[in-house]
Amino acid sequence: MLEDLKQQVLEANLALPKHGLVTFTWGNVSGFDKDSELVVIKPSGVPYEELTANDLVVLDLEGNVVEGSLKPSSDTPTHLVLYKNFPGVGGIVHTHSPWATSWAQAGKPIQPLGTTQADYFYGAVPCTRRMTDEEIHGEYELETGNVIVETFKDINPLEIPSVLVHSHAPFNWGKDANEAVHNAVVLEEVAKMNYHAYQINPDTPRMDQTLLDKHYLRKHGADAYYGQK
Amino acid sequence: MLEDLKQQVLEANLALPKHGLVTFTWGNVSGFDKDSELVVIKPSGVPYEELTANDLVVLDLEGNVVEGSLKPSSDTPTHLVLYKNFPGVGGIVHTHSPWATSWAQAGKPIQPLGTTQADYFYGAVPCTRRMTDEEIHGEYELETGNVIVETFKDINPLEIPSVLVHSHAPFNWGKDANEAVHNAVVLEEVAKMNYHAYQINPDTPRMDQTLLDKHYLRKHGADAYYGQK
Amino acid sequence: MLEDLKQQVLEANLALPKHGLVTFTWGNVSGFDKDSELVVIKPSGVPYEELTANDLVVLDLEGNVVEGSLKPSSDTPTHLVLYKNFPGVGGIVHTHSPWATSWAQAGKPIQPLGTTQADYFYGAVPCTRRMTDEEIHGEYELETGNVIVETFKDINPLEIPSVLVHSHAPFNWGKDANEAVHNAVVLEEVAKMNYHAYQINPDTPRMDQTLLDKHYLRKHGADAYYGQK
Amino acid sequence: MLEDLKQQVLEANLALPKHGLVTFTWGNVSGFDKDSELVVIKPSGVPYEELTANDLVVLDLEGNVVEGSLKPSSDTPTHLVLYKNFPGVGGIVHTHSPWATSWAQAGKPIQPLGTTQADYFYGAVPCTRRMTDEEIHGEYELETGNVIVETFKDINPLEIPSVLVHSHAPFNWGKDANEAVHNAVVLEEVAKMNYHAYQINPDTPRMDQTLLDKHYLRKHGADAYYGQK
Repeated sequence: MLEDLKQQVLEANLALPKHGLVTFTWGNVSGFDKDSELVVIKPSGVPYEELTANDLVVLDLEGNVVEGSLKPSSDTPTHLVLYKNFPGVGGIVHTHSPWATSWAQAGKPIQPLGTTQADYFYGAVPCTRRMTDEEIHGEYELETGNVIVETFKDINPLEIPSVLVHSHAPFNWGKDANEAVHNAVVLEEVAKMNYHAYQINPDTPRMDQTLLDKHYLRKHGADAYYGQK
Repeated sequence: MLEDLKQQVLEANLALPKHGLVTFTWGNVSGFDKDSELVVIKPSGVPYEELTANDLVVLDLEGNVVEGSLKPSSDTPTHLVLYKNFPGVGGIVHTHSPWATSWAQAGKPIQPLGTTQADYFYGAVPCTRRMTDEEIHGEYELETGNVIVETFKDINPLEIPSVLVHSHAPFNWGKDANEAVHNAVVLEEVAKMNYHAYQINPDTPRMDQTLLDKHYLRKHGADAYYGQK
Repeated sequence: MLEDLKQQVLEANLALPKHGLVTFTWGNVSGFDKDSELVVIKPSGVPYEELTANDLVVLDLEGNVVEGSLKPSSDTPTHLVLYKNFPGVGGIVHTHSPWATSWAQAGKPIQPLGTTQADYFYGAVPCTRRMTDEEIHGEYELETGNVIVETFKDINPLEIPSVLVHSHAPFNWGKDANEAVHNAVVLEEVAKMNYHAYQINPDTPRMDQTLLDKHYLRKHGADAYYGQK
Repeated sequence: MLEDLKQQVLEANLALPKHGLVTFTWGNVSGFDKDSELVVIKPSGVPYEELTANDLVVLDLEGNVVEGSLKPSSDTPTHLVLYKNFPGVGGIVHTHSPWATSWAQAGKPIQPLGTTQADYFYGAVPCTRRMTDEEIHGEYELETGNVIVETFKDINPLEIPSVLVHSHAPFNWGKDANEAVHNAVVLEEVAKMNYHAYQINPDTPRMDQTLLDKHYLRKHGADAYYGQK
C-alpha cells in the first residue's frame, strides 16, 4: 500500500546522509497521505545504507501499525502530534544536524539576519521551552510533539517550517517529505551563517522587516515571481 | 545565437556547486557580449544538475528577452545595472556562499589582512548600506544594483571585483564569467580566513599598504610578473 | 590465530580515516579476546592504506608479543592498562580527532548539553589531570593508562566510553572494536556541537538530569526501546 | 636531468590539492639535490591538474635556470634563500592553507598546546616580523627568505620545520619534498586545533615542557621508538 509515498519517504530518508545532515542513524523522515490519513515512517535504528521501501512502517494517526514488520522510529509519536495539529503538513524530518543542534543546545532561536532565511522562513525559527520532568517521565516523545505545538500557538507552521527542541535538535516539515528535507538543509545553512554573523558582530540586529517581507513573499506570497511557473 | 558565450556561462554556473559556493539553486552567473550588448543568464530556480546551454536566457540591457523560453533569474535587473555601470565587466556571479554571506549579514566589509586578498582585491571588499523601504517596495532587484553602484562611487570595480549586499549576500564580477566565478571562490576563502584572524586577534590591523600594493600589482599592474606570459 | 578478531580490528582501523577521525597514522584500534585474554592491535606507524590483517600484532596483557613481526603501536601499554582495569571493554580506539583534541588541549571536560551526548554518554566526558614529570619520564604510555583509570575511579567506564587525556587527545572504548570506533565518532560530533553551543551562549548549562536519564536509558537501560530487538 | 627528483617534486605538488591545502594555484613545492646543488620547482601559475614533470623548472642556487621552458614560481627566490641557509633541508612547500594563513594574518605564533604539535615541532611555530617598506620595494621574494632566516637565528629549522610569514602565509620544509608536504599538513591541523583550544579556553597555557620533550624525542630523538625500524 501507499507505494508512491513509500518511495518518496525512502528517497527523502536517503537524502539526509547525502546532504550531510545525519551521522549514523540520527534522523528520520515520514510522509503523510491526506486521503487515508496514514503515515509512512523510517523504522528505528536501521542504517541508511540498508534501508529499503519495504522496511518502512505504515501507521494511522493513533500510532497503530497498519503495515510493516519493523518497529517504527522511536520519534513516531512526535511526528503524529505534528500531523494532527499542523494541517497542510505532508512530510516531517528529524535530524541532529550539527549547526541547528548547537543552537538547540544553547536554547536560542535562529533570528532572521538575511535573505537566505527570509527566502524560506517568515521570521525566527523558535526554540521550545525546556520540557518538564513530568513530560519527560510521561509519554516523552508525544510530549515532545506537544511542546512543539505549544511553541507554535502564535506562529503559522507553514510559514516557519522548522523548530529547535530545547537541549535536543531540530524538527522540520513541509508539504511533502522532499520539501521537509529541503527545509532541513536550509535550516542547517542559516544556523551556520547566523552563528558566524554573531561572532563577527555580536550586535547584529534582525534584518529589516520590509526586506524579510519582500524575500519571503516573492517566493511564497500570492504574487510570487521566483522560479518557473 | 551567442553559442560560445552560452557555453562559457553554462560552465561557469556549473562551477558554482563544484566549488561549494551554492546550496540548491542559490546562485546565478551571467555573461556579457560587448559587441551585441546582450546578456546571457541562468533561468530562475532551475537545478544545476538539469541545466543545459539551451535553458539560458538572452536579454538586452533593458531586460527584453531576445532568446529563450524560460524566465531569467529573478536577480537579472541587478546584473543589468552592473553591466551598464561597470565598463569592462564581462561576467557576474551572485551566490549565498556561507562565509561571505555571514559578513554581509553582519554588515561588515572584508578588510585586507593578508596577501591572499591582496593578490585579487586592491583593498577592502565593501558592504553596501541597508536598502530603504522605498527601494525594497520599488523595483527591488534593480535598486539592489543601484545601491551597489552607489557603494562603488569612489572605488574602481575592476580593482575590487566583489561586493557584499547588506543583509543579503555577495555579488562578484570579472572580465568574463569564468573570472567572476574565480573571484567568488577567492572572496569565500578570504571571508573565511579574515573571520578566523579576527577571532585569534580582534585587533588585527589592515595589512601594510606597501605589501598590498606589491601583491596586487605583481599580478595586475603594468609590470605584472606572476604566471606565464 | 584470532582471525575473526583480526578482521574486526582491521576493519575498525580502516574505519578511522573513512570517518575523518585521523590524519596520516595518528590513531590505532585494538580488540580484546576475553577467552584467551589476548589483544590484537595496529602496528606502529603503518599507513592505513597499506594495512592488512597480517600486519596486526597479538599480545598478552603483559605486553608479550604472541604473534606478528611488526612492532605494536607505541600506545599499546595504554590499551593494556585499560583492558586490565575496565572489565567488559572489548575494543579501544585512540585518535587525535580534531574537535575532541581541541578540548583535550584546553583541558576541559565535555559536559552533557543535549540528547546527542545523552544517547551515548551518561554524563560528562572527563579530561584527565596533567601528568607529572615522573610519570612522563617513567613508563609514559603505561602511566597514561594509569591516569585514565584514576580519572574513572568514581565513573563507570561502560557508561562513559571516552576520555580526554590532558594536552593530548581522546581514547574511546566499547564492547568491541566496532563500538569503540562508533563512540569515537559520536565524541567528535558532540565535541563540535558543544564548542558551538558555548560560543553561542557561554552560559549554556548542563542539560536537565531527567532528560539525560531518559535518553541514556531508552537506549542503554534495562527497558531500552530504541532500535530493533 | 634529475628525473627522480622531478617525479618526487611533481607528486609533492599534486599532494597539495589532495590534502586540501591549496585553492587554485596558491602553492608550490620545490626539491633540492644536495650533490648538484640544483633546485626543482613548480612553474608559476600553472594549474595542478595540468602539471607534468616536464613543466618543472631546474635552477641553481643563484636562480639561473638550468632546464625548463616555463617561468619558475614567483616565490623561487624565497626557496633559494632557505636552501642556502638551512642545511639539511631537501624540500620546501609554500601554501595559503586557510588555518595557518589565519594565524599569519593575525600575526601570532602557533604555541605548542598538545602532543600533536609535539610529535613534529619542538616548540612554537614562529611568525616573522612585518617586512619593512624597503624590503617590500626591494627584492621582495628574496627578502621574504631573509626575514624567515632572521626569525630562525635562535631556532633550529630542522626541529621547527614551518614558519608563518606575517600578513602572508606559511612556508614548510623537510628532508625532502614529501616530508615538507607532510609537515604542511600537520601545521594546518595544529593551526586548526589551537584556534579551537583558545576559543574554548583563552588562557590555555603552553603544554608542559617535559611532555613536549617526550613526544618530540620519542619520534625524532636519538632513542626514537615510534614507527617500524
